[in-house]
Amino acid sequence: MNYFSSNFKLGILGGGQLGKMLLFDTRKFDIQTYVLDPSDEAPCKIACNNFFKGDLMDFETVYNFGKLVDVLTFEIELVNIKALEKLESEGIKVFPSPKTLKLIQNKGVQKDFYAKNNIPTSDYKRFDNLKKLVVQILDSKLKFPFVWKCTQFGYDGTGVKIIRCIEDLDNLPDVECIAEAMIPFKNELAVIVCRNPSGDIKTYPVVEMEFHPEANQVEYVICPARIDNKVATKARAIALDVSEKFNHVGLLAVEMFQTENDEILINEVAPRPHNSGHYSIEASYTSQFENHLRAILNLPLGNTDSKVAGIMVNLVGAEGFSGDVVYENIEKIMSWNGVTPHIYGKKQTRPFRKMGHVTIVNEDINKARKIAEEVKNTIRVISGQ
Amino acid sequence: MNYFSSNFKLGILGGGQLGKMLLFDTRKFDIQTYVLDPSDEAPCKIACNNFFKGDLMDFETVYNFGKLVDVLTFEIELVNIKALEKLESEGIKVFPSPKTLKLIQNKGVQKDFYAKNNIPTSDYKRFDNLKKLVVQILDSKLKFPFVWKCTQFGYDGTGVKIIRCIEDLDNLPDVECIAEAMIPFKNELAVIVCRNPSGDIKTYPVVEMEFHPEANQVEYVICPARIDNKVATKARAIALDVSEKFNHVGLLAVEMFQTENDEILINEVAPRPHNSGHYSIEASYTSQFENHLRAILNLPLGNTDSKVAGIMVNLVGAEGFSGDVVYENIEKIMSWNGVTPHIYGKKQTRPFRKMGHVTIVNEDINKARKIAEEVKNTIRVISGQ
Repeated sequence: MNYFSSNFKLGILGGGQLGKMLLFDTRKFDIQTYVLDPSDEAPCKIACNNFFKGDLMDFETVYNFGKLVDVLTFEIELVNIKALEKLESEGIKVFPSPKTLKLIQNKGVQKDFYAKNNIPTSDYKRFDNLKKLVVQILDSKLKFPFVWKCTQFGYDGTGVKIIRCIEDLDNLPDVECIAEAMIPFKNELAVIVCRNPSGDIKTYPVVEMEFHPEANQVEYVICPARIDNKVATKARAIALDVSEKFNHVGLLAVEMFQTENDEILINEVAPRPHNSGHYSIEASYTSQFENHLRAILNLPLGNTDSKVAGIMVNLVGAEGFSGDVVYENIEKIMSWNGVTPHIYGKKQTRPFRKMGHVTIVNEDINKARKIAEEVKNTIRVISGQ
Repeated sequence: MNYFSSNFKLGILGGGQLGKMLLFDTRKFDIQTYVLDPSDEAPCKIACNNFFKGDLMDFETVYNFGKLVDVLTFEIELVNIKALEKLESEGIKVFPSPKTLKLIQNKGVQKDFYAKNNIPTSDYKRFDNLKKLVVQILDSKLKFPFVWKCTQFGYDGTGVKIIRCIEDLDNLPDVECIAEAMIPFKNELAVIVCRNPSGDIKTYPVVEMEFHPEANQVEYVICPARIDNKVATKARAIALDVSEKFNHVGLLAVEMFQTENDEILINEVAPRPHNSGHYSIEASYTSQFENHLRAILNLPLGNTDSKVAGIMVNLVGAEGFSGDVVYENIEKIMSWNGVTPHIYGKKQTRPFRKMGHVTIVNEDINKARKIAEEVKNTIRVISGQ
């Protein structure tokens, strides 16, 4: 197949920042792209070859879009799977496959998949709705504390809550959910796996998600994770196993817990480029985005090793500011060595909205960590006067 | 000044591959771009915010385009300087400045500038036309061999010829020209300098241009150059001096000869991102394109050091092929570690047309050099069936 400066067409469902970063690589290889997104101001609108506005959950919209392209991928899981299935049955290549996506899109189904395939994960119970969960608590069949997760449509921390007493359930939506055992863990880790249709498979190094001590928010993604080599080797092996068992094609971001006994338990997976892999643009021989593209086009996978240590800091809208965005002190952080801001291109900020990220690379991971903290304390995403 | 996701507008004259690679960084920072190019199929047409088709040498076209933007730069020197001067006089920031561009655009004027400013360069004579040069030969005032260069509009080896006898002048155009002394040299080197309006200035490491032993074509650009540290230090110092004497803003690519006595002589300069700096996308902490952008926006300059060794191989159209381009064996070279193709997006190949480049990075420069040779011998730019 000739992808380069040819008539080949790649379709991308979703036009957000993940798609935008993928477009850097489609441009680099001069691969024609079609993007579908509900917003006319999507970050992908520029740099794709053809942009279509439309609802990603609407069967007809997704189906008609998919018929225009040769290979179809997505940068967000919330897409109409039935349309993907029909497209696949009609010969359009859809990667990751709708079959895999179905196993991942619902967290209850995802958990069952781990249980069935002997993939280590925390204990859990599935419930059709919140009421059924409450009944089990009242029957003493479910003990506090546990983690409540809605099975679908959760995103960036929404749809997850630690439940320590019955009052913590107040105001939760009455939807399909799971209750997961609380895992006392040392570290939250992630491994990105890439795999192509030929079955070539590679993992990126293990990264560590460092959380804010008070707020329950990832502050830094650190590559490589500052963990024992044995634990890292185990984490990569488990991630490989998960990707193969899903028969996955494309990127799979595997989030994990390192327990206090150095066990690795899978938390959840995302079948696409992932926030935990953004560091790879500057730090890796091949970025996660380039490898996603290589994977779905069945090209040879690129080297996933790092050139240097990398740390990523998310740029989210500061509390108390809404409106036209201003990146306060961005010039200051750009004066420091190895600091690269990525601005996603959303014109309007609001509290906690993901507006960009900053990558810090350095030969010395401790220096990188120090600079990352300075970056975090210096730049602010606010709104103009 | 707020450049990021703001109403600020950057104009770029020229929409070729250099502009295209610059657009990766304008997208990364979400800086609005306007591009002017004569071709409707320019590589920059995608990924800029607004594309305009028009003649870069036409006063009105360039002037009207420039009035739309806040800062104006160019990716090709062959632009209407009078329009740039008028724009600058009306408050548009033009970087590099038309004053510098005037000193560089004509190679005779450029040589005079070096002579006047004590910048080491080869001996030369200027001629208004070829006939006047012939008269000097006949009068024995100009000896063979020498290098004939037309003073304007030369590009990629056109407009330069080694003259060993009077017959070598046959078929040369009767235009303004210079005759340069032939320099027996060990190496052709280049240093890219970036400088912002505040006068912050940095140089990239010295690169080495390795030529094909028979054909007079650059085969590899190698960073760092495999030369003595003292020579490298001298080359960087001279490049800094040249940039400062031009009072240059933006990137200045300084091409040099390392003579047999380890003298450094300036060959010529280009006031823009340059082929000799393409390796920086993968190998450097900050690519030449990002640093050009930082420089012309008066942002702090990024670290010009390398993470790893980098080698660039140009992808030019193979002899005997014209038509719809096919990159033969591109999948094969992509299976090797640290190999990244850049496809500029020209649909049609023709012999020697610059269609793309390949970067090879490795911690070990000798390994990189070996892989680069394999890349060169494997990929071919041909046309389809």
